[in-house]
Amino acid sequence: MGYTVAVVGATGAVGTQMIKMLEESILPIENLRLLASARSAGKILTFKGQEISIEETREDSFEGVDIALFSAGGSTSAKFAPYAVKAGAVVVDNTSYFRQNPQVPLVVPEVNPDALDSHKGIVACPNCSTIQMMVALEPIRQKWGLERIIVSTYQAVSGAGQSAINETLNQYAQVINEGLNPKEVTANILPSGGDKKHYPIAFNALAQIDLFTENDYTYEEMKMTNETKKIMSDENIQVSATCVRIPVLSAHSESIYIETKEVAPIDQVKAAISAFPGAVLEDDPKNQVYPQAVQAVGQKETFVGRVRKDLDAEKGIHMWVVSDNLLKGAAWNSVQIAESLHDRQLVKPTEEMVFELK
Amino acid sequence: MGYTVAVVGATGAVGTQMIKMLEESILPIENLRLLASARSAGKILTFKGQEISIEETREDSFEGVDIALFSAGGSTSAKFAPYAVKAGAVVVDNTSYFRQNPQVPLVVPEVNPDALDSHKGIVACPNCSTIQMMVALEPIRQKWGLERIIVSTYQAVSGAGQSAINETLNQYAQVINEGLNPKEVTANILPSGGDKKHYPIAFNALAQIDLFTENDYTYEEMKMTNETKKIMSDENIQVSATCVRIPVLSAHSESIYIETKEVAPIDQVKAAISAFPGAVLEDDPKNQVYPQAVQAVGQKETFVGRVRKDLDAEKGIHMWVVSDNLLKGAAWNSVQIAESLHDRQLVKPTEEMVFELK
Repeated sequence: MGYTVAVVGATGAVGTQMIKMLEESILPIENLRLLASARSAGKILTFKGQEISIEETREDSFEGVDIALFSAGGSTSAKFAPYAVKAGAVVVDNTSYFRQNPQVPLVVPEVNPDALDSHKGIVACPNCSTIQMMVALEPIRQKWGLERIIVSTYQAVSGAGQSAINETLNQYAQVINEGLNPKEVTANILPSGGDKKHYPIAFNALAQIDLFTENDYTYEEMKMTNETKKIMSDENIQVSATCVRIPVLSAHSESIYIETKEVAPIDQVKAAISAFPGAVLEDDPKNQVYPQAVQAVGQKETFVGRVRKDLDAEKGIHMWVVSDNLLKGAAWNSVQIAESLHDRQLVKPTEEMVFELK
Repeated sequence: MGYTVAVVGATGAVGTQMIKMLEESILPIENLRLLASARSAGKILTFKGQEISIEETREDSFEGVDIALFSAGGSTSAKFAPYAVKAGAVVVDNTSYFRQNPQVPLVVPEVNPDALDSHKGIVACPNCSTIQMMVALEPIRQKWGLERIIVSTYQAVSGAGQSAINETLNQYAQVINEGLNPKEVTANILPSGGDKKHYPIAFNALAQIDLFTENDYTYEEMKMTNETKKIMSDENIQVSATCVRIPVLSAHSESIYIETKEVAPIDQVKAAISAFPGAVLEDDPKNQVYPQAVQAVGQKETFVGRVRKDLDAEKGIHMWVVSDNLLKGAAWNSVQIAESLHDRQLVKPTEEMVFELK
């Protein structure tokens, strides 16, 4: 006896990784249902050697589903997740749509698993850039408290989906093989699919991820601020982010500065990170050991290095944090949430319907 | 009647740009002497259409030279700059060798030109990552004071010389055309020529520029700290940097957080940056306008955007600063120093020899 699991958005950059993470998961899966847009219906993907035909996502796709993993964009989650809940499934949503909904726990399993207990049918997976920061900072917060965070990100193009990966590879081919000036390559996707202008990412750095909000921060930057407060259950943590796309295919890097509430000896900070589940300390400057994006690809852990005192602020610490944005930043964290729901016997139909059907 | 100018390191990534900047300069140049290592001697470069043969740099290379621009590595400057001074030249040194010497002014002409007045034969050009930060922050410091700086850099490979550019292009060819995994490409140069291990830069981000110092910061990071204090003549400015190499060919980007001494209204900050010589405000989020590395290449200015208040700290401001590291970060700032020396009638032999001949 096992679960029927559905993956919504099965053909995307995250969806294909979700299938792989489910293959490696300890979850008892009896049946896997792969859902996507009408365009992908009929395509075949494999799960543990078994061929599975992709079906179009519809309101009635979730009959008999116990766990539904959504990663097909906010509008798909908005439209279909309530139907999944109504059909008795627990939804793990990897889009931003429900993250700030007070009825929806926002969970990094190593950090705030207890938030799962109050779920009402939907659990949200945080933004990729937030998740790896939480894994690196929670061991510090637990021991010395967290006053503020200033973070500058170095984010991979795969966070913008398979089309952004293809665009990046094509731009490099144009520069390397056709001799184009990097500012003249073809750009139709980045910095943000829903925005008016598109810029090259090959040999460039774009200080825009997602659209701009009214306060001149981007939505990506505000996600890091708002999601941190919700996950750490502390409205007073000060978080300001600068989110930047760089020409890396997968794995986000982050330059993080924090101020703790109590003075935190750097050796003890390193030991706390080392001991924290999901975090790996890679920090040996004498031997040039620090986390690197190309090394983190395909790994489930969050890698932390360059941990050092600020040169002036007594409670200031700098660090460099790297993780695979498609795995811990999305697919793996979602599957981990499903595993935690299973462990806590929380995979069961919701008694009261709180999400609106559209 | 004009100057005899020498360029030491004429064949390097910066040296070739120095020749180009001298072509565009208002300096009255009667004679240009191109110096390099023995290996390059006899090669021909052109200056204003005139062919010039490269000579080996020797102790007696500076007879009759009025201005000598050095950019051939610290050891070359250490060895030959004092001979240039002894021969009556004024040296503008683009290496780190003399930067912290109290006898040597460290100059960004828009920021601290008065420091030139006390020169004793050698003027140092600051590190590329420091220069563009100074141009962006000086207009703010002048009006509201500067308490602290936290900076994360996104630095181009050309800062490590022509061999690093070649290595980067080769790595991309290996990935794009040969299908190599980015972690398996050939790496012999980066992160730092003088270090033991070398890592891929294609599709990667390396949180190491230059060697590590005893305090777990790199020399590049400590340059940003120490040079800022010297240029701004303020030992109390708090500066902590995280310096990162990314796969951009030329133009460094920087995510800078500052705290001012007085509260600085953001509109006035933008106006001050706009009005400052050498700085260009590119800041219109609604129209997706912000500085980009690929756009800054070949430009002499420093581009500033994403200027916004910290979400919590009343005196906190974030910004995104981009400039061509080979031009304003090296060749153009050096030639600007030479122009300023000319304007101030400071191109003349030094009376007293203060630098040791080796």
